[in-house]
Amino acid sequence: MTIHADTPPVSSATGRPLTKRGQETRRRLLEAAEQVFADLGYHEASIVKITEHAGVALGTFYLYFDSKQSIFEALVIDLNSRVRHSMSEAMAGATNRIEAEGLGFEGFFRFTAEHPALYRVVREAEFVSPATLKLHYERIVDGYRAGLDAAQRDGEIAAELDTEVVAWALMGAGELIGMRYLLWERDAEGRPPAKIDPAVLAGMSGFIARALRPDTTEGTDR
Amino acid sequence: MTIHADTPPVSSATGRPLTKRGQETRRRLLEAAEQVFADLGYHEASIVKITEHAGVALGTFYLYFDSKQSIFEALVIDLNSRVRHSMSEAMAGATNRIEAEGLGFEGFFRFTAEHPALYRVVREAEFVSPATLKLHYERIVDGYRAGLDAAQRDGEIAAELDTEVVAWALMGAGELIGMRYLLWERDAEGRPPAKIDPAVLAGMSGFIARALRPDTTEGTDR
Repeated sequence: MTIHADTPPVSSATGRPLTKRGQETRRRLLEAAEQVFADLGYHEASIVKITEHAGVALGTFYLYFDSKQSIFEALVIDLNSRVRHSMSEAMAGATNRIEAEGLGFEGFFRFTAEHPALYRVVREAEFVSPATLKLHYERIVDGYRAGLDAAQRDGEIAAELDTEVVAWALMGAGELIGMRYLLWERDAEGRPPAKIDPAVLAGMSGFIARALRPDTTEGTDR
Repeated sequence: MTIHADTPPVSSATGRPLTKRGQETRRRLLEAAEQVFADLGYHEASIVKITEHAGVALGTFYLYFDSKQSIFEALVIDLNSRVRHSMSEAMAGATNRIEAEGLGFEGFFRFTAEHPALYRVVREAEFVSPATLKLHYERIVDGYRAGLDAAQRDGEIAAELDTEVVAWALMGAGELIGMRYLLWERDAEGRPPAKIDPAVLAGMSGFIARALRPDTTEGTDR
């Protein structure tokens, strides 16, 4: 399996970069795949169902992807870059790292509420394409860790924290909070919530702020 | 689906409690199921493969379980009670809640190293039996939360923490740390580690201790 991620998509048939119209068709196929994989699961999903859902001819599919496996992997990569985008967009307004963490989670939860497929697709990736699953987690953690390292250098978070371990811990915390309070939650009409309960977000942000904040004796000579 | 958990196992054929020998056969079947589901996944696994692996006649299976789905659910429940046992056993020596948290994770990681099937089975449960998956998480969280609530009453952890949210966050943190540093880790010979890297455990315990510890101004009148 080769993953060309964060590089412009190319045609699987010609190997050349896609035109603007080609990119739109590829996007339509990915959106259809998100729906079909989430509704049916990997085994029941098929290329025919994806192209039907996308309103695209079956033959056209192969200009973009080689197989069901390859569109599945492309979908994980695509959801991954979009969830990271949603997180960094949310973090942009922060004035320090601890605030940024809280906002990053808000971005993650917002994306999860809009794309409940994220969880199902990522969990199936464990069986369908373990390497892509790994990539998904590693990319989020790498981003996290870089932010934590920078904050540590600036004295914004405690010096003693192991930023790699903390990055994995925070990602896991976010994942299960999202599962419990978004995917499992239903309102009186049985609908999933449009956004996470602000009290839960506050509880989560408070927990993270406590864990990350520098000791009061740290950085006093700054 | 009916889940009779934490009650003595009964024969699926007679509805009566199992004899000691019956319990041993049931245990053999569950151990075989753990191996078979972990190696092959739910779809490829079969009752025949499980009974062959257990060295038990096919007909005997139905004295204990009704179907592949029912032994899968029983396995999740069984792994769940064993991982919780491993955690509480590890916590028994703690002198306070923050130390207990660190030891509880050690118990969780020890069980994960010995039963790598836990992760695969739990993740497949999302697709095979969502209600059992929910039960698995909720039982761990309920135990956690009860401990955190008691510690909060005793002033051992910060009063402001939302113990329910924290319990979900901690479980998620433990899950991904276990995935990254046990399931994905390989030594020079390509073998999974027998136990978690002590530095990772220390990083995790330190992170949790920081998040939970009471503010220095708290409890000074105690």
